[in-house]
Amino acid sequence: MACCGNCFCCQCCCRERETRTPEELTILGEIQDEENEILPRKDYESLDYDRCISEPYVEVLEGMDNKKAKKYEAVRWIMVFAIGVTVGLVGLFVDFFVRLFTNIKFTLVVTSSMNIREPCSDKGCLSLSLLELLAFNLIFIFIASVLVLIEPVAAGSGIPEIKSYLNGVKIPGIVRLRTFVCKAAGVLFSVAGGLFVGKEGPMIHSGAIVGAGLPQFQSITFKRINFDFPYFRSDRDKRDFVSAGAAAGVAAAFGAPIGGTLFSLEEGSSFWNQALTWKVLFCSMSATFTLNFFRSGINFNKWGSFQLPGLLNFGEFKCSNGDKNCHLWTAVDLAFFVLMGVVGGLLGALFNCINRSLAKYRIRHIHPKAKFIRVLESLLVTMVTTVVIFAASMLLGECRDLSSSEFCFQLASTDDINSTIRPFFCPNKTYNDMATLFFNPQEAAIHQLFHQDGTFSPVTLSVFFLLYFLLSCWTYGVSVPSGLFVPCLLCGAAFGRLIANILKVKLGMDLYSGTFALIGAAAFLGGVVRMTISLTVILIESTNEITYGLPIMITLMVAKWTGDIFNKGIYDIHVELKGVPLLDWETEVEMDKLTASDIMEPNLTYVYPHTRVQSLVSILRTTVYHAFPVVTENRKNEQDFMKGNILISNNIRFKKSSVVSRAGEQRRRCQSMKSYPSSELRNVCDEQSAVVEPSEEGEDLLQQMLERRHAPYPNLYPDQSPSEEWTMEERFRPLTFHGLILRSQLVNLLIRGVCYAENQSSATQPRLSYAEMTEDYPRFPDIHDLDLALLNPRMIVDVTPYMNPCPYTVSPNTRISQVFNLFRTMGLRHLPVVNAIGEIVGIITRHNLTHEFLVAKLRQHYITI
Amino acid sequence: MACCGNCFCCQCCCRERETRTPEELTILGEIQDEENEILPRKDYESLDYDRCISEPYVEVLEGMDNKKAKKYEAVRWIMVFAIGVTVGLVGLFVDFFVRLFTNIKFTLVVTSSMNIREPCSDKGCLSLSLLELLAFNLIFIFIASVLVLIEPVAAGSGIPEIKSYLNGVKIPGIVRLRTFVCKAAGVLFSVAGGLFVGKEGPMIHSGAIVGAGLPQFQSITFKRINFDFPYFRSDRDKRDFVSAGAAAGVAAAFGAPIGGTLFSLEEGSSFWNQALTWKVLFCSMSATFTLNFFRSGINFNKWGSFQLPGLLNFGEFKCSNGDKNCHLWTAVDLAFFVLMGVVGGLLGALFNCINRSLAKYRIRHIHPKAKFIRVLESLLVTMVTTVVIFAASMLLGECRDLSSSEFCFQLASTDDINSTIRPFFCPNKTYNDMATLFFNPQEAAIHQLFHQDGTFSPVTLSVFFLLYFLLSCWTYGVSVPSGLFVPCLLCGAAFGRLIANILKVKLGMDLYSGTFALIGAAAFLGGVVRMTISLTVILIESTNEITYGLPIMITLMVAKWTGDIFNKGIYDIHVELKGVPLLDWETEVEMDKLTASDIMEPNLTYVYPHTRVQSLVSILRTTVYHAFPVVTENRKNEQDFMKGNILISNNIRFKKSSVVSRAGEQRRRCQSMKSYPSSELRNVCDEQSAVVEPSEEGEDLLQQMLERRHAPYPNLYPDQSPSEEWTMEERFRPLTFHGLILRSQLVNLLIRGVCYAENQSSATQPRLSYAEMTEDYPRFPDIHDLDLALLNPRMIVDVTPYMNPCPYTVSPNTRISQVFNLFRTMGLRHLPVVNAIGEIVGIITRHNLTHEFLVAKLRQHYITI
Repeated sequence: MACCGNCFCCQCCCRERETRTPEELTILGEIQDEENEILPRKDYESLDYDRCISEPYVEVLEGMDNKKAKKYEAVRWIMVFAIGVTVGLVGLFVDFFVRLFTNIKFTLVVTSSMNIREPCSDKGCLSLSLLELLAFNLIFIFIASVLVLIEPVAAGSGIPEIKSYLNGVKIPGIVRLRTFVCKAAGVLFSVAGGLFVGKEGPMIHSGAIVGAGLPQFQSITFKRINFDFPYFRSDRDKRDFVSAGAAAGVAAAFGAPIGGTLFSLEEGSSFWNQALTWKVLFCSMSATFTLNFFRSGINFNKWGSFQLPGLLNFGEFKCSNGDKNCHLWTAVDLAFFVLMGVVGGLLGALFNCINRSLAKYRIRHIHPKAKFIRVLESLLVTMVTTVVIFAASMLLGECRDLSSSEFCFQLASTDDINSTIRPFFCPNKTYNDMATLFFNPQEAAIHQLFHQDGTFSPVTLSVFFLLYFLLSCWTYGVSVPSGLFVPCLLCGAAFGRLIANILKVKLGMDLYSGTFALIGAAAFLGGVVRMTISLTVILIESTNEITYGLPIMITLMVAKWTGDIFNKGIYDIHVELKGVPLLDWETEVEMDKLTASDIMEPNLTYVYPHTRVQSLVSILRTTVYHAFPVVTENRKNEQDFMKGNILISNNIRFKKSSVVSRAGEQRRRCQSMKSYPSSELRNVCDEQSAVVEPSEEGEDLLQQMLERRHAPYPNLYPDQSPSEEWTMEERFRPLTFHGLILRSQLVNLLIRGVCYAENQSSATQPRLSYAEMTEDYPRFPDIHDLDLALLNPRMIVDVTPYMNPCPYTVSPNTRISQVFNLFRTMGLRHLPVVNAIGEIVGIITRHNLTHEFLVAKLRQHYITI
Repeated sequence: MACCGNCFCCQCCCRERETRTPEELTILGEIQDEENEILPRKDYESLDYDRCISEPYVEVLEGMDNKKAKKYEAVRWIMVFAIGVTVGLVGLFVDFFVRLFTNIKFTLVVTSSMNIREPCSDKGCLSLSLLELLAFNLIFIFIASVLVLIEPVAAGSGIPEIKSYLNGVKIPGIVRLRTFVCKAAGVLFSVAGGLFVGKEGPMIHSGAIVGAGLPQFQSITFKRINFDFPYFRSDRDKRDFVSAGAAAGVAAAFGAPIGGTLFSLEEGSSFWNQALTWKVLFCSMSATFTLNFFRSGINFNKWGSFQLPGLLNFGEFKCSNGDKNCHLWTAVDLAFFVLMGVVGGLLGALFNCINRSLAKYRIRHIHPKAKFIRVLESLLVTMVTTVVIFAASMLLGECRDLSSSEFCFQLASTDDINSTIRPFFCPNKTYNDMATLFFNPQEAAIHQLFHQDGTFSPVTLSVFFLLYFLLSCWTYGVSVPSGLFVPCLLCGAAFGRLIANILKVKLGMDLYSGTFALIGAAAFLGGVVRMTISLTVILIESTNEITYGLPIMITLMVAKWTGDIFNKGIYDIHVELKGVPLLDWETEVEMDKLTASDIMEPNLTYVYPHTRVQSLVSILRTTVYHAFPVVTENRKNEQDFMKGNILISNNIRFKKSSVVSRAGEQRRRCQSMKSYPSSELRNVCDEQSAVVEPSEEGEDLLQQMLERRHAPYPNLYPDQSPSEEWTMEERFRPLTFHGLILRSQLVNLLIRGVCYAENQSSATQPRLSYAEMTEDYPRFPDIHDLDLALLNPRMIVDVTPYMNPCPYTVSPNTRISQVFNLFRTMGLRHLPVVNAIGEIVGIITRHNLTHEFLVAKLRQHYITI
């Protein structure tokens, strides 16, 4: 905590560096605080949302009619429903056990010893309670920590990881069954252990794992789970299901199905796919109502009715029926809401700033050490938290009058509200306001702040806010599963309630305290997480009151804008600290000064349509690229080569056949139209085809067209590997682009022995089906697992049936905004840059589009002009 | 009405033709019912959502830094807020006057003569009331009809037109100020005139016009309105604002800001643009709360509070506080909701089928005739409606007991509910149930069905449903501004209430009638309009009850699926009848058997980078294309040409400079890095640049590379126009693609005299700024307005600074789904198809991607294989 001093806050909050223009940066030179700089790491794999259409897929396609497509679609709906129900049940499970454990704890410790209205006569009694409580909490947190040790990615809220996944970056282990078990079980104990953590973030992560795992019908962790159901084995399908699962997680956590849908849209999906959105909404609804059904049944014994929307709900904001002058908010209040938004944004920025420094400290000093150090940290946090809340309740809590609450009378919920107040050494008919907030489940404390009409003293609220702020900030990042939503809401609600208190008592204004608490919660949460649309909708849905739409939205907007002046949202900060190359929504306008050729990677490793096994193995072993452009060289004496070398002649033949010309295309159309029974069309074509020369001559024409292109570099055989001695011209000789092939596909081809001998035709090469190509998804074999003794290095592999022959491409002059838009919207992984005559000049991947890379390139651009 | 017989229902509902496979269709031959076939018309202009980045824009860009971009963004926020407020005020205006007129009407006619509890003693009294009512209604509808005569696109709901606009098709006059005035004023009178129409659709259309018009700061209708504020003059910006305006319209109409946002996403935006969505939500919120603020102030004199969310709201669904067993719905009810969804889907399909036939009848028999015929039709509908409801209330209404309503007691709203019941000749303490439904504003009738606990007799509900169904079906399409939402809701609510009555009375089930009425309304509305996500959210927001989410969603889903078996949604039907080439969300899976080369248009009209004025004028005058590819020919003896003809040599020079090679690119990078101060980088480059030959030799290399390509067609000068005598090879000779230029840009260049003389350099050509290029948006001058005498036909135009040099392109082998996805998502207008060696082989526009075109091509594909 010592490191959260004033000096680093200036460093990390003010972002002096980033607000400077690139020109200034140039003048300042390269003097950068290397310690603060965390560049996106290059070792994350990307996901490919684009569907590679190659021949095995076309085979699937040929057998595909609309009926089959409908069946496939029906399976999707069933899967989505299953995901929703499962997530709902997970929510139920978590909720049930958190309640159970908390109840056990409070029944054994708190109620028996602390709910008494006077301190024990002998001192041993008090310290005994504290010790009992401490023991419970330490045991719970120890279990949670150990679970996280088993699977380290289960720590934290999981939202940064899910955000990265939906953005297209694969973080290892993030959607595995083992992670799910550790996360779902861990969050039980971390919440029950009395830490200031929420269960909402882990719920979202759990939902995403269910979404990723359920439609696969197999598990890597438990090899036995394998139902031989080989659908949905592609990044595209998996990501869609993860969207649905994450949305279901939000829906179950907050009872907000629409908010959940918007969450997964806001965080993930790059384009508005109506069919997908509809499924995601259905999945969210299924989750909410599964949870609702069982909770209503179990908690109220009212099976068949639906009364408890989500794990977290804010109760009913409602004026008393008799009071006609009471209103939830007025136009005048809006001004205060804006101010609260500003303060919330500032507080959120401070929170993020402190948490960022803590996280960096942890990365540098705790993570490299032995793992049990992390467990010790968790236990330390638990101990401090327990002691602090105990001491604060004892020493700073005020005894408030219970019956003072007649301002805005609540009909049904008053009983529930009053059942969670804590007397805690206070005399009869009063309660200890600090203990009421601290010695309750957080949801109950939020309810208290929103709906308890008995006042909390300003001092209590201030102290509570401060302690909660610091402790929850310290807690987020400790290695237990921990959400941020509920602590932030509680913290913000205390702040809002404080404002309401001041306005009501000091200025005598007529206002509804609950609304101010809600707006305070929104302001602080908005300042911390900086989510916009989805958070607005989630909060509206949680309050079940549409009229709160405008104030919540304005508050969140102001909080976000205020906070954005200083730093990023907490999830983005953690994404950044992990070095994930996340892509933003859009690039800055200034970046349009760059073009695709400025940012592309021009050093290419490529394969030919027909390549020898030895070349493929050497390329795969010496590079780490995940995709290779399939190219042919533009050479001079192609016909000579054709006679001399079967490999080259095959490549040249492929090139010929792959170049569609307008004349050829037109001829093809005419021929196809001749067999078409419409008489009118036939006339047009007969006329044209009369003009066409005999097809042999047409062939010659094609031949001629191809002979036009001849490269200035003779003597280079395609299976020569790039040599260090080549001149730049040789290194960067012109290559016509034909398609992209993935590393996994090449390895697969080699392993399955897909190749032909030099003296045979390429038609003799064995063919793989779509199922065989995708069998190993998502963990394809590595080239180093390959037994080279089984391969004949002189054999030739024809990759053309398996490559993606028509990926999206851009021209070298394309502006960055357009490149970015295409890449982001289509969810691409590799974007070839192809010039006006069809030659590949470079390739763009995610790393070429990260903010840091673009800023560096822009700086370079300013220097050179 | 005679034409709604059994025979055509089979024809249009069963869609026998469409469910057949293409093979069957081929066998059936070309015998198609030409009368039923409405093919997409080709005379609609498309909108271009893609930003053309050409040099004038780059100029803007160079002056653009992040500060300026932020200012620009701030203006957008202000505009969006202004749109929201304006739409809210429009809603207020419409609401106020509808109320005023309806009140006048009912006060003068209904209350005075009909609210008495016994019929007049003398017969003249009754017929007098009818005549009075008839006179009022006829006058109102006459005014509405005349307004629509002034601007015919103001007829109907406007949703099909807005849907088309957001999809990317420009329907003339759809977002003009004149349309706005006619629509907003017309809907007042058509609603007040007692027709079975809603004001929600027209509100959405009005909102869209406000969105389109307000940020332009000028008007074509009123030339004087011109503030010289030349921002947002592009299809892209305009479409964004139209989205926001339409969403605000929904928000104002239903008090559903989130639903409005989702509506504009569902109907329009092709990609999820977070910044845009956030603005749209803000706009919707502004509209809702502006309306809310003023209505609360005006109607309740409670300025500053917000109590009336939207023009239409469904009141509060709430169990009585005392009744603990009452619940809005249970799991058992869900089964009934599914059944109601099926019935709603069937009824909706029938509604659409009848309405479609009526619309076709109108197109064929009424629209070609004199315009006053349309007015007569409106008046006829009015007369029939008035007489029918009068007769039905008189003859079929039952007198129900007023005090029977004790089932689910309502606290506050009972007074309001009972204030709108109509005694209508019934004895004391009873009311006429039919008259209560018919002689009230539709919103009040909906409230009655949702919340009146006094029962309506099953006979009344059946008759009401039947009459309303037929009359509203007849009315939609009459030339008055008319929405469909409220009539459908009312009709469906009657159906739902009927089901509830039966279940409650006959089966003795314990249920909440209001929920069944709501679900019935959702089922029927869903069956008619087939909207999904947005409708779910709109209905949830209108009821302000999140727990209705699942039943509403399931009902809508079932209703949509049931209806989709028979025909499309009503809006899609009307879009189809207008022949708008709308693009769906995705293509069918089967279409992936086609590739881009199958559907592209291979006959190209192109321009050269440097073209003579005479060629441009002749191309522009003889074609109707909106964009032209800029190409160079691949010819043999380019160097000879360069000496001979300045025009060709300029073109060839352009081609040279536009071909970026990998070697050249690498050289450029090294040179730029040398000036970069990083020492490490410099080393790498020095090493490489040592290898590089002097730049002159590099030039030669480029020269050589270009010389490789030589076309087999000599003697063709670029300014020769395509001749009829050319052979196919000449007609389809290879052309290297360099960019796209729009017709409007070419005309603009000609009008402003942007060209250079043959003996001068192209650098002498005057340059246009971005502002000059976009000055005439959205109505650019026509080529036929151009005074040819002012042009020197031998001058040369250099189009390269103005063309879009890097549009998205696809390869000829790309599958249709990928082409479609790119086109739809990026909102393109022209998509060039470019082969592996950079030659353009065709172009794809919206018309090549319509369902009808693809089906035809697929049929052809099946024949030829």
